[in-house]
Amino acid sequence: MFNLIPKEVRFYDYFEQQSRNLVRAGALLRELVYDFPDARAKAHAIKEVEHQGDQITHEIVKRLNTTFITPIDREDIHDLATRLDDVLDYIEAAAERLVVYRIKEPTSACRAMADVIVQIIAATDRCIHCLRAMDPGFHEHAVEVNRLENSADTLLRESLAALFDEGGDPIDVIKWKEIYETLETVTDRCEDVANVIEGIILKMA
Amino acid sequence: MFNLIPKEVRFYDYFEQQSRNLVRAGALLRELVYDFPDARAKAHAIKEVEHQGDQITHEIVKRLNTTFITPIDREDIHDLATRLDDVLDYIEAAAERLVVYRIKEPTSACRAMADVIVQIIAATDRCIHCLRAMDPGFHEHAVEVNRLENSADTLLRESLAALFDEGGDPIDVIKWKEIYETLETVTDRCEDVANVIEGIILKMA
Amino acid sequence: MFNLIPKEVRFYDYFEQQSRNLVRAGALLRELVYDFPDARAKAHAIKEVEHQGDQITHEIVKRLNTTFITPIDREDIHDLATRLDDVLDYIEAAAERLVVYRIKEPTSACRAMADVIVQIIAATDRCIHCLRAMDPGFHEHAVEVNRLENSADTLLRESLAALFDEGGDPIDVIKWKEIYETLETVTDRCEDVANVIEGIILKMA
Repeated sequence: MFNLIPKEVRFYDYFEQQSRNLVRAGALLRELVYDFPDARAKAHAIKEVEHQGDQITHEIVKRLNTTFITPIDREDIHDLATRLDDVLDYIEAAAERLVVYRIKEPTSACRAMADVIVQIIAATDRCIHCLRAMDPGFHEHAVEVNRLENSADTLLRESLAALFDEGGDPIDVIKWKEIYETLETVTDRCEDVANVIEGIILKMA
Repeated sequence: MFNLIPKEVRFYDYFEQQSRNLVRAGALLRELVYDFPDARAKAHAIKEVEHQGDQITHEIVKRLNTTFITPIDREDIHDLATRLDDVLDYIEAAAERLVVYRIKEPTSACRAMADVIVQIIAATDRCIHCLRAMDPGFHEHAVEVNRLENSADTLLRESLAALFDEGGDPIDVIKWKEIYETLETVTDRCEDVANVIEGIILKMA
Repeated sequence: MFNLIPKEVRFYDYFEQQSRNLVRAGALLRELVYDFPDARAKAHAIKEVEHQGDQITHEIVKRLNTTFITPIDREDIHDLATRLDDVLDYIEAAAERLVVYRIKEPTSACRAMADVIVQIIAATDRCIHCLRAMDPGFHEHAVEVNRLENSADTLLRESLAALFDEGGDPIDVIKWKEIYETLETVTDRCEDVANVIEGIILKMA
């Protein structure tokens, strides 16, 4: 019996470890857009973090297959692992695009978006840390995640409107639109993580 | 016991109330595209409805936390509340874009899309009203939702093809593409609502 | 009792039959991009396959309503049916776009994407065939689906970067971006199918 319990608890450890990867990737993305000459190295570092994240996701799924009793429903553990992985994927996609599309200099909208991403990941991280104790303090952090997702959405709309108004090179408009949308999707995926956790906590109640 | 039953029943009330918000937002969107000089006021009214929708979503989640017995699985109530909220979000996003992107006059494709949205929301509303009695008449309405989503999809494709053929200002093409896609996403999210309800009714069967 | 068992088993038959439709649609899409003068006929044939797929999806949902005992949870059967349908929808959408947008000749990136789609559908088909026996060999095929989705993602990014670099007509850039993204979404939806199956196998374990 005491053999099974540590096994169970490990799922929380994995989620918290994955959440640290999100925090790390978010910080790197922010550094990338504020210190752009070094963008390629930062994008590479994000790719590394994303690979480590994949390992954790695979480890969680493997453990699910060999653990008889899980602290939360197996399908919810699987769902949460998948959603956390999605956040990393989109951070990596945004970083990669900034490099591959030969951007000269990130716009201020792009930097503002990276700031929101750092904040929403911090709030998501607080949600994750509520899971172990099914802490009702969760809801406050979930509200913060929602608020930040809304603010990213507003930022996206305003940035696009400004981009259209400036009437620059259409190809540049297409590039930036794509990058802004990818950055905004990072915040959507954080909201998905908060939603899955909300679902789990409701089930447990 | 008679204390619990009213509590349970209330979830259906909330869903029907939220569905009325969808009907209202859809009608406002249609008015917005047909009477464009008044667009800003209509977009503002949609924003109001969307805020009221947020209140209902939060109320549902709060009730889920304090209700011991729910008429349908807690996670399904949570899922349906989230999906209904998504529909409102996209209606609001479409309205906001029409204003923020400084559109001069909605195209006929844009108006046709708003007409389909009004119809698909009416069919979605009929799906919602089947929930309380787990009415098998649901399937007929779900088929209608699917049909309308398909027709929005065809409309999107044809509108984009026409837009490309006309060979106008690329920035205008980008704007309209974005707006058409957001309008079409409203119908996708209605289909998601119908799918969640279908899942609930199947579970209950 | 022996009346119920055949009924149950039929769900696997439906999923395998639907998977054959995916294989067929993928093969037609590949033919379409390699033999473009005949595109319209191929797109029509894909539309046919997609209609047959719709029939199967409706049949699955109808059977769910009349079958008391199901081999896997009703909501998972419903979820998997919906996800498989999504793959067909996006293949059809990609084919339709290639025709409707009056493309002159598919690019090599477009052909490479169709090749990846044929491969990922083959790996998805192997996942589906693991379902009946809850075959642990599933994981190997799921890893392959993930790998191919990643390679489609890389292909998309590089194709877009090349498209932007070439600096052609912005309208053409918009068209191709849309087509590449739709093709890449086919691989995302295949990954969703693999994820749902992974969830089912975990639940059954």
